[in-house]
Amino acid sequence: MMTDYRLTSLAKSLPDTVPFVGPETQERARSRLFDARLGANENVFGPSPTAVRAMAETQHWMYGDPESFELREALADHNGITPDMIVVGEGIDALLGYLVRIMVAPGDAVVTSDGAYPTFNYHVAGYGGVLHKVPYRYDDHEDAVALFKRAAKVDAKLVYLANPDNPMGTALSGAEIVEALEYLPDGTLLVLDEAYLECATQNIALPLPLDDPRVIRLRTFSKAYGLAGARVGYAMGAPGLIRAFEKVRNHFGMNRAAQAGALAALEDQTWLRSVQARIAASRNRIAEIARKNGLRTLPSHTNFVTIDCGSGPEFAKAVLNEIVARGVFIRMPFVAPQNRCIRISCGRPAQLDILTEVIPLALRAAELR
Amino acid sequence: MMTDYRLTSLAKSLPDTVPFVGPETQERARSRLFDARLGANENVFGPSPTAVRAMAETQHWMYGDPESFELREALADHNGITPDMIVVGEGIDALLGYLVRIMVAPGDAVVTSDGAYPTFNYHVAGYGGVLHKVPYRYDDHEDAVALFKRAAKVDAKLVYLANPDNPMGTALSGAEIVEALEYLPDGTLLVLDEAYLECATQNIALPLPLDDPRVIRLRTFSKAYGLAGARVGYAMGAPGLIRAFEKVRNHFGMNRAAQAGALAALEDQTWLRSVQARIAASRNRIAEIARKNGLRTLPSHTNFVTIDCGSGPEFAKAVLNEIVARGVFIRMPFVAPQNRCIRISCGRPAQLDILTEVIPLALRAAELR
Repeated sequence: MMTDYRLTSLAKSLPDTVPFVGPETQERARSRLFDARLGANENVFGPSPTAVRAMAETQHWMYGDPESFELREALADHNGITPDMIVVGEGIDALLGYLVRIMVAPGDAVVTSDGAYPTFNYHVAGYGGVLHKVPYRYDDHEDAVALFKRAAKVDAKLVYLANPDNPMGTALSGAEIVEALEYLPDGTLLVLDEAYLECATQNIALPLPLDDPRVIRLRTFSKAYGLAGARVGYAMGAPGLIRAFEKVRNHFGMNRAAQAGALAALEDQTWLRSVQARIAASRNRIAEIARKNGLRTLPSHTNFVTIDCGSGPEFAKAVLNEIVARGVFIRMPFVAPQNRCIRISCGRPAQLDILTEVIPLALRAAELR
Repeated sequence: MMTDYRLTSLAKSLPDTVPFVGPETQERARSRLFDARLGANENVFGPSPTAVRAMAETQHWMYGDPESFELREALADHNGITPDMIVVGEGIDALLGYLVRIMVAPGDAVVTSDGAYPTFNYHVAGYGGVLHKVPYRYDDHEDAVALFKRAAKVDAKLVYLANPDNPMGTALSGAEIVEALEYLPDGTLLVLDEAYLECATQNIALPLPLDDPRVIRLRTFSKAYGLAGARVGYAMGAPGLIRAFEKVRNHFGMNRAAQAGALAALEDQTWLRSVQARIAASRNRIAEIARKNGLRTLPSHTNFVTIDCGSGPEFAKAVLNEIVARGVFIRMPFVAPQNRCIRISCGRPAQLDILTEVIPLALRAAELR
């Protein structure tokens, strides 16, 4: 009886598995909290204290403003654009879902890198789109030219590019993407995921007007602004495209406190700069820990560092397991040939002290397997 | 160029208008805050102080648990069921969206009452479903038998019934719905929206097991629990149906503080009872204000009262406008013949004092129009 629900044929075809297993799930399975939570690219340095206060002072009995008006005004000012070029949503995840929903019908082609953000792929599959995957470049960077060429070949509705990239941590310069855009076909929208933009070591923002009709850019308060738990992302693009989100978005879906927190976080650029400095220091220290253990790291423009374990996927997986078994939550969200790597989010000095102890032990244990 | 986006044909067909205009939008248009915010059925008495504290103490830098495990465990205990019968989402709005998405393909039939919750209709239209609407009963109650008979006639995938009902405030007894279920065809799922259940003056919960495969029940922390701004709803049903939400939901969409706040709110049943008493007192006073002005109210099992303005829709609209112009935010979310009514959410005594002054003035002004 219970299996008789008349799901749509598309829904029937979808798995009911989760793109990511959360750290809490792993903690419940091991019946112990992690000593260091360095696997979800969360920002351990946290949000601005003024953001925390704004959230604490929120009147939770009121629905949030369905237009996120004040936040959009502030974001427009911050980015030198008008509010009609901005839509706010429940994290980039939700915005990606809305975007795929309005653009991708069953059978439509979408292009991404093989090993790029699984939640984007989850949405594309969820609306019946057909994913075409392009390998990373030889140097573990996303290959913009190859992505756009593939988009032309398969007549893609969307092409996804994260810059800086997750899970590699690498970035392309804005100029490089502009050059590659020559290959972007008419009718393909570039979905530029800039979740980690504020973590980059230099300005890599795309040097094109924010209403360039070929591009939609996604940003978030979850990374450098330290508000992952609040779920606030935004998309910027041409007004005609941004307006289309009104067709499908959950208008009253934004948490009221989250809107207030994001607004306060945006206004505290001093805090942001201090976090950026701490992220940079943490990145350097993770690289140093890796180097001391004979491992190479990839150049990182994010709040995590990808470590090349120097061998095949079995060894990297063993290293991962040995690190996790020692109480440090990290992840290995890679596909071949990048699955020779593990990914470690930036941590506070005390957490990196734990990492310093754990990594050599984990490496030794993995080598003995 | 900007109008050339290759939206899906379904998305192209959808309007980009908003189901509800928020009070903040109206406040910006009039350049003044409302003196009393009694239009969105928010709970002015607010959430439990322990919920407020739990949210304030949340570490916002961490993503929320994608399984909402602790909250689901607590809800399972509270309802005497197992967690696999519960899915937590970003308010009932989001859960309705997920449900429609997994069940309704373009052209599929869905049944609801004419004048019932517009956001449900928004989702059905948004996935290409075809809405069939049944009038309210002569006594302004939802007509369960007529709804289910219509579902049989059009082979509906879903039939929507809110109990207690919004916008009327009326309720059916659980026994009445059980009797009507005789007419529910195989293959139609009853979507029982119980957002206002905790506000009912007596127990009207459906006296059937919560895993009855014919029904999915939706509940929320936005009404009696006072957490509208947090966006926490949940659905209960047979595990096979609940599991299907995993196919499409935004797994990391739940705000971390909101999960903690809802858990704390659920645990403070003493606060809930005090709010229930205050809602009842407020309902009585609104009814009394209406009566003193010669107006009839509908029996309310919710945190709002529907007032019959005693004439046609033009008069009710005039009364609404005159009340709003005097600084009291209320709504009139009705279709004929219920659009002879206005709807007023429960308020604190000070807000009802304002209402006491405003209503006779508004009535007189509406009569003079």
